[in-house]
Amino acid sequence: MLWPSAEIYGGVQGLYDYGPAGVAIKRHLESAWEAWFLGLSHDYHKIEPTDMLPEAVVRASGHLEHFSDPLVTCENCGARLRADHILEEHGANDAEGLAVEELAARLAALHPPCPRCGKGPLSSPRAFNLMFAMEFGATGKERSYLRPETAQGSYLAFARMWNVGRKRLPMGIAVVGKAYRNEIAPRQTLFRMREFNQAELQIFFDPTQYPEEWRAIGDGKLPILLARRRAEGATEPEQIAEKDLVEKEGMPPFYVYHLDQIFRFMRDVLRYPPDKIRLLEKNEKERAFYNRIHVDVEAFLSSLGGYKELGALHYRGDYDLTKHSEGSKSDLGVTTEDGRHFIPHVLEITFGVDRNLWALAEFHLKADEKRTVWSLPSYLTPTIAGVLPLIPKKHGILAEEVLSNLTKEGFSVVMDEAGSIGRRYARLDEMGVPMVITVDAQSETDRTYTLRERDSTTQRRMTIAEIIPLLRSANIPPRSHPV
Amino acid sequence: MLWPSAEIYGGVQGLYDYGPAGVAIKRHLESAWEAWFLGLSHDYHKIEPTDMLPEAVVRASGHLEHFSDPLVTCENCGARLRADHILEEHGANDAEGLAVEELAARLAALHPPCPRCGKGPLSSPRAFNLMFAMEFGATGKERSYLRPETAQGSYLAFARMWNVGRKRLPMGIAVVGKAYRNEIAPRQTLFRMREFNQAELQIFFDPTQYPEEWRAIGDGKLPILLARRRAEGATEPEQIAEKDLVEKEGMPPFYVYHLDQIFRFMRDVLRYPPDKIRLLEKNEKERAFYNRIHVDVEAFLSSLGGYKELGALHYRGDYDLTKHSEGSKSDLGVTTEDGRHFIPHVLEITFGVDRNLWALAEFHLKADEKRTVWSLPSYLTPTIAGVLPLIPKKHGILAEEVLSNLTKEGFSVVMDEAGSIGRRYARLDEMGVPMVITVDAQSETDRTYTLRERDSTTQRRMTIAEIIPLLRSANIPPRSHPV
Repeated sequence: MLWPSAEIYGGVQGLYDYGPAGVAIKRHLESAWEAWFLGLSHDYHKIEPTDMLPEAVVRASGHLEHFSDPLVTCENCGARLRADHILEEHGANDAEGLAVEELAARLAALHPPCPRCGKGPLSSPRAFNLMFAMEFGATGKERSYLRPETAQGSYLAFARMWNVGRKRLPMGIAVVGKAYRNEIAPRQTLFRMREFNQAELQIFFDPTQYPEEWRAIGDGKLPILLARRRAEGATEPEQIAEKDLVEKEGMPPFYVYHLDQIFRFMRDVLRYPPDKIRLLEKNEKERAFYNRIHVDVEAFLSSLGGYKELGALHYRGDYDLTKHSEGSKSDLGVTTEDGRHFIPHVLEITFGVDRNLWALAEFHLKADEKRTVWSLPSYLTPTIAGVLPLIPKKHGILAEEVLSNLTKEGFSVVMDEAGSIGRRYARLDEMGVPMVITVDAQSETDRTYTLRERDSTTQRRMTIAEIIPLLRSANIPPRSHPV
Repeated sequence: MLWPSAEIYGGVQGLYDYGPAGVAIKRHLESAWEAWFLGLSHDYHKIEPTDMLPEAVVRASGHLEHFSDPLVTCENCGARLRADHILEEHGANDAEGLAVEELAARLAALHPPCPRCGKGPLSSPRAFNLMFAMEFGATGKERSYLRPETAQGSYLAFARMWNVGRKRLPMGIAVVGKAYRNEIAPRQTLFRMREFNQAELQIFFDPTQYPEEWRAIGDGKLPILLARRRAEGATEPEQIAEKDLVEKEGMPPFYVYHLDQIFRFMRDVLRYPPDKIRLLEKNEKERAFYNRIHVDVEAFLSSLGGYKELGALHYRGDYDLTKHSEGSKSDLGVTTEDGRHFIPHVLEITFGVDRNLWALAEFHLKADEKRTVWSLPSYLTPTIAGVLPLIPKKHGILAEEVLSNLTKEGFSVVMDEAGSIGRRYARLDEMGVPMVITVDAQSETDRTYTLRERDSTTQRRMTIAEIIPLLRSANIPPRSHPV
């Protein structure tokens, strides 16, 4: 599904290439995300801004100044290491996000050896910017940066999208694509990469006046670990009714409404087990200074030994458009029908595509004594159906015909002719193919086929005309959105 | 459809952001390309390698040494300019691709003023590498490069794809994605960008033994301008029979077969007027030294005043795998069933996605006194159908129901309620929407609708059950390939 980039050269830390199956699942995962979140409104659209940002943009957004990790150098072996990771290795669980000064003080008190060479001493921590920078143009005077998140492109496009659109809030701008970070310690393959895939939706809205449905919060419960409960030592989520989050915990309804949407996407579209999901509220120290509310969407992944972030919901207030108004010297405020002029607020839904591929493998690839089955939701599988000639020499021609007809209908189908039917079923189960069409002697006479379903393993005899609508609906993710 | 990146900051030369309609057409164009070219064989697959390449890779590929433009600096105003462009402005039509030494000699003889400030003098030309380079990792010792073409990722993946595949030639590896070049003089918007979209298929094959169908060259004609005819002064293509290209001009059949495939893609899938297409054979001076045969696929674009390159076919021999065998110290040769061990040859089909978007607009957007119609092939349009309630107040509810049903079937449909029916038809024609469904009083009673086709403007009454298959087949590009 994927492998280290340039592996014939020994690979590159933090870079991975996707193979054919990985590409297909990734594309379907992105489409399912778009169907779900862009399906929330006719005023939500996807754009494709460039990966490169000029320096003025990252200066205004604060990335030039703030987007850094604290780094120490071992004066003995020269290794460069993250200061907060060193503290974590010595038992600290609150080191991430600490200011450089505080890290310096704690390291000075602890005086740890270098984790690489065992000696040291380690230098004081310094801020190391995580953006990839490059010379841009021929003069050597301009610089550009690879975007460290896709969001900035949406903020930059806000004015244009507003002007060509219906001029109504909420308005949404999504970007699905690459982001780049010069991580000092890439690790856990898909979980900290230097080039990775994000899907992000920026919802621009008026915090004083928003759609009724955003307020229609009910009794549904969310598995959340609140910052105040964490301060008391809790580590597991509680099931809290959504209306209690609003009424007792003081979360704005617009925030709870979108938490619910994200939770349902994970549970109903990606079909993650709900008892493995944790919504983790970050406290003031942990979250970026511009975030007013920040909840990470996590899943417990046994393969990685704990809860891992798969997405997040950030209420960023008016920080982004204000900063870009200042930076670009243009007014990014809007005037509403009732004559108020203000800078729209931003609610950001962010989703780590690569990380969720990992989670899809962890939660849906199951093996017992009898079978290994990758029970991916059908609309995410690379291949919607397999075509098996029972006896390839006898039924191969008709099978080819079936394959070709289904391909012409736009379906992704494969032929498998090698080995017993049982072995072929097993192979397709492992690949996650949701439906298998077997061509046998009876097919030759009456043009009916055995349709076997991956999950139930039930078999039915059907015509191609009956099979096609089944494949069709299996291909469509919930809440389909025009892409 | 697209606009300058970071336009609120004044834009960035050579960078453009795609808006929602642009994104949709681009995605469909890429899918149509994949359907056509990956549909050529079950052993052709798409992968997604990273955009960043480590230095060892671009050293082995020759890009570090050779991928440069000749640049002069004006000693008066400091402008940096392409030496070959300056010669072109003084009437040379063979300056592109000349060696730096030759450019220097010609400039010295010509002694031109600076085209920017009118003075000068201009310095001698120097090679300026077009790759974007950046520090990679924390030490400052490693460098990586943004890929200047997507092809390298396919070469790097060859060994793995061979080993997990059927171990048969021809094998194809496609990459569809971004490439990056620090162009000194970005111009003509989509035609010379610093970040652009490519679709490339690398076909690895045995030049001594290849599929029969690659040899089945017939009487079909191709509009080609041969290098030897250009040397005689010809500028327009001739219609030459494919078998004459093989028998009289000495082109290998495998090359002519793929030229034909590319020509038919342009003519039958993108529906470019065949008399605007020119296949331009590059001569030895113009083509890269590793290319044994190089034909550019061009179209005459009036908007840009001439023939412009939209794609190409490169016979690269065994250059790429040989270089990466040396660079990575791994044997990228294969052993065939008859026991021969050799480095596969590469035939590269390359396609400029952005440039073809431009061509699609030029060739299909037509206006006369009566109508403005964007006659995009239906499988390329952002929206397959419009739904119009004749009288929105009366027929709006049923129209919403139709819209929602079609959306659930996975179709991209829009509602338009504003203005007269004629005005709404006109608006959808301009957007390229191929079919329009009108909901009227009769629909309320018998659930039939008027279906109007964009190109013929014919109208028919039909049920939704009859309309759906029409939309379905309109969505599928020719030679559909499982994606």
